[in-house]
Amino acid sequence: MWNETALTARLGISYPIIQAPMAGGPTTPELVAAVSNAGGLGTLGAAYMTPKAIREAIEAIRGLTDRPFGVNLLVPPPADASPEAIARAQVLLDRYRVELGIPPSPDVNTGMEPFGEQVEEVARARVPVFSFAFGIPDASALERLHASGTMILGTATTVAEARLLDAAGVDAVVGQGSEAGGHRGTFATDFERGQVGTLALIPQIVDAVRVPVVAAGGIMDGRGLAAALALGAAAAQMGTAFLRCPESGASSLHKAALAESRDDATVVTRVYTGRPARGLRNRMSDELSTHSSELPAYPVMNALTRGIRQAAAHAGRPDLLALWAGQGAPLGSDVPAGDVVRSVATEAARVLGRFADQ
Amino acid sequence: MWNETALTARLGISYPIIQAPMAGGPTTPELVAAVSNAGGLGTLGAAYMTPKAIREAIEAIRGLTDRPFGVNLLVPPPADASPEAIARAQVLLDRYRVELGIPPSPDVNTGMEPFGEQVEEVARARVPVFSFAFGIPDASALERLHASGTMILGTATTVAEARLLDAAGVDAVVGQGSEAGGHRGTFATDFERGQVGTLALIPQIVDAVRVPVVAAGGIMDGRGLAAALALGAAAAQMGTAFLRCPESGASSLHKAALAESRDDATVVTRVYTGRPARGLRNRMSDELSTHSSELPAYPVMNALTRGIRQAAAHAGRPDLLALWAGQGAPLGSDVPAGDVVRSVATEAARVLGRFADQ
Repeated sequence: MWNETALTARLGISYPIIQAPMAGGPTTPELVAAVSNAGGLGTLGAAYMTPKAIREAIEAIRGLTDRPFGVNLLVPPPADASPEAIARAQVLLDRYRVELGIPPSPDVNTGMEPFGEQVEEVARARVPVFSFAFGIPDASALERLHASGTMILGTATTVAEARLLDAAGVDAVVGQGSEAGGHRGTFATDFERGQVGTLALIPQIVDAVRVPVVAAGGIMDGRGLAAALALGAAAAQMGTAFLRCPESGASSLHKAALAESRDDATVVTRVYTGRPARGLRNRMSDELSTHSSELPAYPVMNALTRGIRQAAAHAGRPDLLALWAGQGAPLGSDVPAGDVVRSVATEAARVLGRFADQ
Repeated sequence: MWNETALTARLGISYPIIQAPMAGGPTTPELVAAVSNAGGLGTLGAAYMTPKAIREAIEAIRGLTDRPFGVNLLVPPPADASPEAIARAQVLLDRYRVELGIPPSPDVNTGMEPFGEQVEEVARARVPVFSFAFGIPDASALERLHASGTMILGTATTVAEARLLDAAGVDAVVGQGSEAGGHRGTFATDFERGQVGTLALIPQIVDAVRVPVVAAGGIMDGRGLAAALALGAAAAQMGTAFLRCPESGASSLHKAALAESRDDATVVTRVYTGRPARGLRNRMSDELSTHSSELPAYPVMNALTRGIRQAAAHAGRPDLLALWAGQGAPLGSDVPAGDVVRSVATEAARVLGRFADQ
């Protein structure tokens, strides 16, 4: 039943399953390739990588699969953190640095990797699919990618954002519902408004845009994929479902925390990166929550907490780690990524077939 | 295809569509009967009604339909507002009272209708279905209703709450996702944790309980019903989808605001009733949002704002009305309730049948 959707045909994949970009470690070349080899679309979350590291990762993926895959980048927001806000955040964070035995208030590079150079690297590599979030790259970047034969997917959290993406010429819109783990993709409204649940969001985006829609947020198994297709989506994007796979580069602490999570265990917080993102509630998200509005914006806060998160991972301290997770996390498992793809597709076909039998 | 689910057979309805209880006006006997006559299950939202009014409404419904219907009550929470909190809220609200030309700081009855007497009235009337939210009635009340031949549905917003309901002996669990309009049903955790999206929540509840699960939150059309069934729900409960129907008792201001709403137009606020509820963002929800945590709890705050809401409705002022709405509100229409039931069922069958054709 799967080859019938226009989007899977255009993407050249067997099943309408896209592995979500999860920048910062989880999307190893092994994970990306395993998803693609199983008939889904693996995606490299490349936002925090240098152009050289992106090139090498793409080469590694191509060494592991000849199937289509994607690369994802995050459109850099304006950096507008004041020195005063940074100084205040340093004071708040120093207690954790002292606990972890790392130097207080370190100098940190609060910049992003150069987006233009990252895009150029992706274009030169002629990757099959490019996806993005946090905004819309300028027209020349999109044209450059299209000219390289790359399909382009943009991320929206509201109908208005989906319309902006459609007008900008993307090939598909990823609708990110509020259940989704990791960063909110919201870029054209305030973050609170951009918290629309997947089940309400997807049909409204489908009705509003001309291009295919990919559903994201809370989709963990065949039931979720079947629901996404019923809502009118052409495919599902799944992140948390792949985090515990052996090919995932998520830390063992992160994987262990996900294995014990509950439906109500997550929170949308900006304490780790300065930008609202959904993860498992823990000590740091709880303790800094009252300071949330005064923390510097992404990517500055992300840079300020990086050393803490690295030291916490090293010290086996999940209470000071960003444990990204969607609200469906308890439905996940630790099987290989290819098995996730196949079982989700098989279960979705069975779920939808059940209604046909009646 | 619809008569196959065990829940619809037990409820004696044709389609797995339950009209959500919407206490405070919308669920007129005409709306309840229209939904039931069309093959769904209409529900009277009776929480704010006296036992006598409940009896009369049930008689009116029975005069309009011989099909099954439900009555919903809200388990009263402990009333714990201090005189100081009430006095502070009165000051905050007096600016609106002055604007509307009604007396400042009026004495108000901050109590609830007596729950035990309401339950007794429902039991005496031997209604086919009783549903509840905000907690769990004591065992004797549930036994009394079961002994009257009534099916019992309880409302959960988390897996843990669903397990409590299952253990208490309900016949089905309504899983209320974060998209839902009106009051959050959360009763065993804090409200922030109880904001799980429908798509993530339903499969987790289905896996956790022995009884059938009804999906609620963001379901507006056949796509939503099809998605709910794919997630493993036995039926969908829809509220906002019926608010604009001619049979609905929602005010014309409310209906007009819903007709112009957007996916990102709602907010979960406690400024109107003291209990988090989703409605269209407006002046009062915006202006009082910074005072949210200091406002008296439900039902006290509900009583304090009642006069303002009544005067605002009379004066044509939607900026001071509680405009309950789910995140799917823009997908609604103003056709008769029977047409909503039939079109949702027909579209869901078509959506699910599409996959069978492939």
